[in-house]
Amino acid sequence: MAAPASSSIYSPLRSSQRIPRGLCNCSPPSASSISLLPRGLRSTSLGRIGFSCLSSDQILTRVAASSAPVMDPTKGEVSLKVSTVVDVDLGDRSYPIYIGSGLLDAPDLLQRHVAGKRVLVVTNTTIAPLYLDRVVEALTRGNSHVSVESVILPDGEKYKDMGTMMKIFDKAIESRMDRRCTFVALGGGVIGDMCGFAAATYVRGVNFIQIPTTLMAQVDSSVGGKTGINHPLAKNMIGAFYQPQCVLIDTDTLNTLPDRELASGIAEVIKYGLIRDAKFFEWQERNMEALLARDSSALAYAIKRSCENKAEVVSLDEKESGLRATLNLGHTFGHAIESGFGYGQWFHGEAVAAGTVMAVDLSYRLGWIDSSIVERVLNILQQAKLPTAPPEMMTVELFKSAMAVDKKVADGLLRLILLKGPLGSCVFTGDYDRKALDETLIAFCKS
Amino acid sequence: MAAPASSSIYSPLRSSQRIPRGLCNCSPPSASSISLLPRGLRSTSLGRIGFSCLSSDQILTRVAASSAPVMDPTKGEVSLKVSTVVDVDLGDRSYPIYIGSGLLDAPDLLQRHVAGKRVLVVTNTTIAPLYLDRVVEALTRGNSHVSVESVILPDGEKYKDMGTMMKIFDKAIESRMDRRCTFVALGGGVIGDMCGFAAATYVRGVNFIQIPTTLMAQVDSSVGGKTGINHPLAKNMIGAFYQPQCVLIDTDTLNTLPDRELASGIAEVIKYGLIRDAKFFEWQERNMEALLARDSSALAYAIKRSCENKAEVVSLDEKESGLRATLNLGHTFGHAIESGFGYGQWFHGEAVAAGTVMAVDLSYRLGWIDSSIVERVLNILQQAKLPTAPPEMMTVELFKSAMAVDKKVADGLLRLILLKGPLGSCVFTGDYDRKALDETLIAFCKS
Repeated sequence: MAAPASSSIYSPLRSSQRIPRGLCNCSPPSASSISLLPRGLRSTSLGRIGFSCLSSDQILTRVAASSAPVMDPTKGEVSLKVSTVVDVDLGDRSYPIYIGSGLLDAPDLLQRHVAGKRVLVVTNTTIAPLYLDRVVEALTRGNSHVSVESVILPDGEKYKDMGTMMKIFDKAIESRMDRRCTFVALGGGVIGDMCGFAAATYVRGVNFIQIPTTLMAQVDSSVGGKTGINHPLAKNMIGAFYQPQCVLIDTDTLNTLPDRELASGIAEVIKYGLIRDAKFFEWQERNMEALLARDSSALAYAIKRSCENKAEVVSLDEKESGLRATLNLGHTFGHAIESGFGYGQWFHGEAVAAGTVMAVDLSYRLGWIDSSIVERVLNILQQAKLPTAPPEMMTVELFKSAMAVDKKVADGLLRLILLKGPLGSCVFTGDYDRKALDETLIAFCKS
Repeated sequence: MAAPASSSIYSPLRSSQRIPRGLCNCSPPSASSISLLPRGLRSTSLGRIGFSCLSSDQILTRVAASSAPVMDPTKGEVSLKVSTVVDVDLGDRSYPIYIGSGLLDAPDLLQRHVAGKRVLVVTNTTIAPLYLDRVVEALTRGNSHVSVESVILPDGEKYKDMGTMMKIFDKAIESRMDRRCTFVALGGGVIGDMCGFAAATYVRGVNFIQIPTTLMAQVDSSVGGKTGINHPLAKNMIGAFYQPQCVLIDTDTLNTLPDRELASGIAEVIKYGLIRDAKFFEWQERNMEALLARDSSALAYAIKRSCENKAEVVSLDEKESGLRATLNLGHTFGHAIESGFGYGQWFHGEAVAAGTVMAVDLSYRLGWIDSSIVERVLNILQQAKLPTAPPEMMTVELFKSAMAVDKKVADGLLRLILLKGPLGSCVFTGDYDRKALDETLIAFCKS
């Protein structure tokens, strides 16, 4: 087997070289162990071999040593800003989520996860003018062995289809991308899902990296390996479980995010609190104003805590045998809204918000939660300026026909995520009174 | 988690219930251990729990006991004809290949691998009139809980594309197939590859079963989990590694196979001999007439030995890090012929045969094999009535441009499978003299 020699100093991380969990606190690996590092004080080692806790001086030294041709800290070019690494523990498919400010300007982080010499950046018409050049620069700075191509797709959920995904394949084949190439998803959830699915299926699988630029993608869709596209009849019906090499979250990208999209992401943040993290929900109740005002430390904490929750769930149930389905609170109703109302009319998080209210309403009708939870959910969603009811055009029939093709239907039985018990507790079940579901649908639909 | 109750007696095999390797000879599991059972004398147990060696009487008893509602051996309805089980050992994705005559009439074999209540049979316009009713009957006989839908695609390599595959998704969604459904591929390699890829990606993965009806599919494409479709610019560029629940090979289906397609399959049989099994190659030299005359025991042995070779290679290298690539002897040249000449002009095995001659020619030019191997390869392919040179329209340029997008290109370097050493030995390498490759191309092309 001849492996072509590479003179690049940037080798892809192999599984044996992955950054170990619990790096700096020397704690044993756990389902989702977290390295929470005060910025500039400690960080993960960037060397290829060997890991240790480093002081800020040592980090700069190590960065300079491993990346000497590209970064000269004395010129102030480099400011390593990884404040948090959340590890998604999936055996040999484990990967880190880097969260911090200014990470798009940290080439070493990206380059260490690039396998081979060819990179295809997949982005959209909104994000390309804002960040594409910086990402290309980060991928190639001091690394002339890597060549980067890009494909710029139209922006929006309605383009999350097979026809648009074929443009990724067209570009990859025209550019002669081979098995060792890396796809980079630069954008929101639609780009991440499509690029990930393209990476999962191009020459039966190539490496990929997620650079989510919306809060929705940062707290949810970029983490966990769900990739796919929509079918005209139902959302996310075609796809694959496929894990990235890393997720790079530069919180600065949220500065260009429209308000409605920020709120859409907050809907998923709220979900984590409701299904499994009452303390986080209470933190959100106290800090919603700060989140909406884009307070950077509030956002960073919300992203970190969301990723931790998601990483833990995904580590325990990667392929959604059960537990992972709980991440879909409100999503069955929400997907019905998206499909009935038309993809892209509402943002995903807006549909999920209305769907969450409906799931909570059904939970209450079943007698599984008390009314204070219903009120708190309504309050926090209203505070986040998210919808708390489906669009007026949604009918009971539209809900029912969309819900019949939901992926959580098993042998004809629709299973739902419903709250049950105290705040932060939920169930995934097909064992609920269908009459109560009908009542919920009637309560939220005019016909 | 509410799992709907099922009153069906046919439960899908879970991994813990899989038929153990080395069943009847009590040998320890190996990478590819084989139970070779004289027909009617011994067989694998069909009971859900517990396995043992059985006499023919005992088998009939056991079958009747496990399938009493559907099969009455006293009426002569059942003749259990599994003569061979080849196990593909891939940990929790292991599966059996059943090989024998009359297996389409053995409902218990199929039904035990069907998860859930919904089955989608994917087939084509050639195979549907011949075998679809029998497969539906085998899936449903005595099992009213299972409902079967089918989708009949046009026949031919040129339909192995995204547009045709979408018809599978359309039918699955219209029929409200859910995550517990099973896709059944009934047909040749094109159907198996497309149905497998659809199964890999429909709601991010559902169960599937391969029922290959061509020799090509029986000895090669149905085994090993490579699935996918063609891109207009290159073959099999979009796909996934996805393993079936089982492969069911009814050797009787070869009785309806046209001569050219039989020969196409023989090209892959010859390949196994060349790359790793000199004794098998010698057996083929002695038995080619019998194979071409469709002698059933010769065909059964060729299928079994091919599946054993493939299962062993796949078990050692599922994702084609190296060893598995050797199964592609002649395929880089062959794919170039298929893409340059137009998909479907030649059968895959015909292109592979010509490609094999070119790979052998190159191996000889490099001084890696002696001339007797070149002659034996030419002889056996001619005996099988397979092409030994590319079509006249193929030019050096057509070869080069198609080979540049071959999946075995890594970082710009084309790696090839070449013979080296005594019969039955090969290498997968990018370390060969490019001048010799040019000479081979020039020798086989008019321009």
